[in-house]
Amino acid sequence: MKVEVVAVGTELLLGQIVDTNSSWIGEQLALAGLDSHYQTKVGDNPARIREVLLHALGRSDAVICCGGLGPTQDDLTRDVIAEAMGSELVLDEVIADRIREMFRSRGRDMPENNLRQAMVPVGATTIPQQPGTAPGLICPFGPPYEGKVIYAVPGVPYEMQIMVNGTIIPDLVKRSGSSAVIRSRVLRTWGSSESALAEMLADRIVELDETGNPTIAFLASGVEGLKVRVTAKSPSEAEAVAVLDAEEEGLRQILGDLVFGLDDQNMEVVVLDHLRRRGLTLALAEAVTGGYVSARLAATAGADEVYRGSIVAHQAAVAASVLGLGGLGEGDGSGVSEDGALTLARQARSVLGADVGLGVVGAVGQHPGEARPMGTVCLAAVLPVGAGSSEEVSATVRLPGDRERVRQFAAISLLDLLRRTLEAAPS
Amino acid sequence: MKVEVVAVGTELLLGQIVDTNSSWIGEQLALAGLDSHYQTKVGDNPARIREVLLHALGRSDAVICCGGLGPTQDDLTRDVIAEAMGSELVLDEVIADRIREMFRSRGRDMPENNLRQAMVPVGATTIPQQPGTAPGLICPFGPPYEGKVIYAVPGVPYEMQIMVNGTIIPDLVKRSGSSAVIRSRVLRTWGSSESALAEMLADRIVELDETGNPTIAFLASGVEGLKVRVTAKSPSEAEAVAVLDAEEEGLRQILGDLVFGLDDQNMEVVVLDHLRRRGLTLALAEAVTGGYVSARLAATAGADEVYRGSIVAHQAAVAASVLGLGGLGEGDGSGVSEDGALTLARQARSVLGADVGLGVVGAVGQHPGEARPMGTVCLAAVLPVGAGSSEEVSATVRLPGDRERVRQFAAISLLDLLRRTLEAAPS
Repeated sequence: MKVEVVAVGTELLLGQIVDTNSSWIGEQLALAGLDSHYQTKVGDNPARIREVLLHALGRSDAVICCGGLGPTQDDLTRDVIAEAMGSELVLDEVIADRIREMFRSRGRDMPENNLRQAMVPVGATTIPQQPGTAPGLICPFGPPYEGKVIYAVPGVPYEMQIMVNGTIIPDLVKRSGSSAVIRSRVLRTWGSSESALAEMLADRIVELDETGNPTIAFLASGVEGLKVRVTAKSPSEAEAVAVLDAEEEGLRQILGDLVFGLDDQNMEVVVLDHLRRRGLTLALAEAVTGGYVSARLAATAGADEVYRGSIVAHQAAVAASVLGLGGLGEGDGSGVSEDGALTLARQARSVLGADVGLGVVGAVGQHPGEARPMGTVCLAAVLPVGAGSSEEVSATVRLPGDRERVRQFAAISLLDLLRRTLEAAPS
Repeated sequence: MKVEVVAVGTELLLGQIVDTNSSWIGEQLALAGLDSHYQTKVGDNPARIREVLLHALGRSDAVICCGGLGPTQDDLTRDVIAEAMGSELVLDEVIADRIREMFRSRGRDMPENNLRQAMVPVGATTIPQQPGTAPGLICPFGPPYEGKVIYAVPGVPYEMQIMVNGTIIPDLVKRSGSSAVIRSRVLRTWGSSESALAEMLADRIVELDETGNPTIAFLASGVEGLKVRVTAKSPSEAEAVAVLDAEEEGLRQILGDLVFGLDDQNMEVVVLDHLRRRGLTLALAEAVTGGYVSARLAATAGADEVYRGSIVAHQAAVAASVLGLGGLGEGDGSGVSEDGALTLARQARSVLGADVGLGVVGAVGQHPGEARPMGTVCLAAVLPVGAGSSEEVSATVRLPGDRERVRQFAAISLLDLLRRTLEAAPS
């Protein structure tokens, strides 16, 4: 089953928007075990959209076409697909009512041109998930593309993602020959290399190769960690979920606390959830990450009640005067140590008045006279245990890459230290 | 002159890396007035790379092919292009020596397979700029693609960008029919809408339409501002530069202090440069941007001597206890004011021991009981003037979009306030 992705929009060609949708879809296809060999971007031009879609249908079995489903005259995907199918566009009354109702519920009049979005090619069906005004379309083709299909989804990432995961991936897996219910789950890990993870899972993968259900795939996602996706094919939803549950439990036994979250949970979401459940607040002192940990936390939904703030000491003198940590710059460089990180964590907690403090120091060529090798990062967390006492944990890691990469990996490593500590402690 | 972009790399299809190179090249083509209708991603597979390149050559005049020029067996672009040209690959001794010298200067032995990178198809020429071990290639084609050309560049963004701007864009413009020297310059602006900028420049664009040299294009780049690109075609380099200089001066008279930088200078680079030249250090207090201003500054080369640090008050209680600013959360919401921002700027300066302090507060649904409308942001800067006295400036802006977008625009608006103030003051 070969699937390719076409992204429609002149703004993508002009570089006004980076096409992250295709990358995201590519990852979902890979994790579902579907082959994807090409991705194409094309502008809002009907002849060129048609050329790209038909060329893609010629060499692949299915095409996911992203964008161009809006209400304006520039939104041409519907029209081009209908014409390529040799079909008329007809008004889908159910979709039309749904769009009218969306406007009504927001107390707004529906502009007449939004009804363009309810036009569906004869022979196509609509995707049940419809978070916005644009419905997704499943458009099967006849000769010379017999048995092939174009899925049209909106370019709004949130809407597209719900349709791809909710309908398109399961439909593709089904078309690829299975009549079973397909469900999958991603275990997100941090703290292992790709090769080490592959080694840990090698025996289990051999076992699963024999049974064929579930299957496992894994994918490196940079600062988001390594993702392990489990996909189950079963006769029913309940059985598929049971297979996933069992496999998740088995994998957790193999991977232990490398697993930090599931599906869309990133490290910030998981850490903030742990803290919220325990009624704890969090503060930071960042001497190497430059405010990057803070920016990630602040951008997370639900951070407001938990996350208090950060003191960013970019220069060594600030660490010394505000946070009481010497030895970062000139001198012996002794500040880049677990003791130094602990000093910052304690100060974050007391200065910013939080229950939990995190501190991070490191050598990234930022301060003259750094005594530790480039990429050395020391992390620390201070947490309350019982009345009036606290637990202190620290770690040293050596991170690869340039300064920016070290900073980004240091930020996630810091949050991961807190995550592991919270998970190990009784709540 | 139709140009398309092909990005090579299986990791792009799998979503492990987002293809920002194609977007960047698309922007350069648009600013140079070159048409670009398609962008394609393809994996590390010789048959498919060949299919994509030849399909692109069939419908366009030139192809920029990005990636697959590394030293490993997976790097196939050279081989595929040579075969499509009907050429042999031969060792280019100049390039080979250059690669050997790069290793020698870093005190390392060159692995033998790096010599693969010195293999050049007969009939192709190398791009003079070569920041890394991979040379860029200019590969002209014969029938049936007579007069067409493939440019091969490495996937490393920094290396690719130097080659595209240094050689490929000028070569494309020349191939498009001009024998003149082509040079361009980007004026970067902040603080105006696209339509307002278009209105300011309308008369000048009409004038230039008549003379035809230089030309002007502009492009919205989100949080990086609006870019105005001036392109001059002249018989010689000196004359082209003279045309650019004159046009830049004219545009600066029209646009005034909306212009903050040239070419690759972003707002952080410009602000840090101003401060460095005056020997001033900078500190921040961020109550709405969540550390985002700090993260951008810390990621800028040359920040270390100038940028001291930031106090990020995500919760109102931290602004009150650490920075002495009440009224952000519960209560009357009076903290979201220019006075509030000034309090933060003064505190940043004194607590973090810097010459210049910046403060930012805003209403983004972060604190319960916000009294100002969503997107209201107050900015302030405090700077030294003469011995012992200081200048205080502040502003209120109303920014569109969701919380993340408001934060990002607030960060650049804050730096821009400082930039304008520094430029208005005698240094």
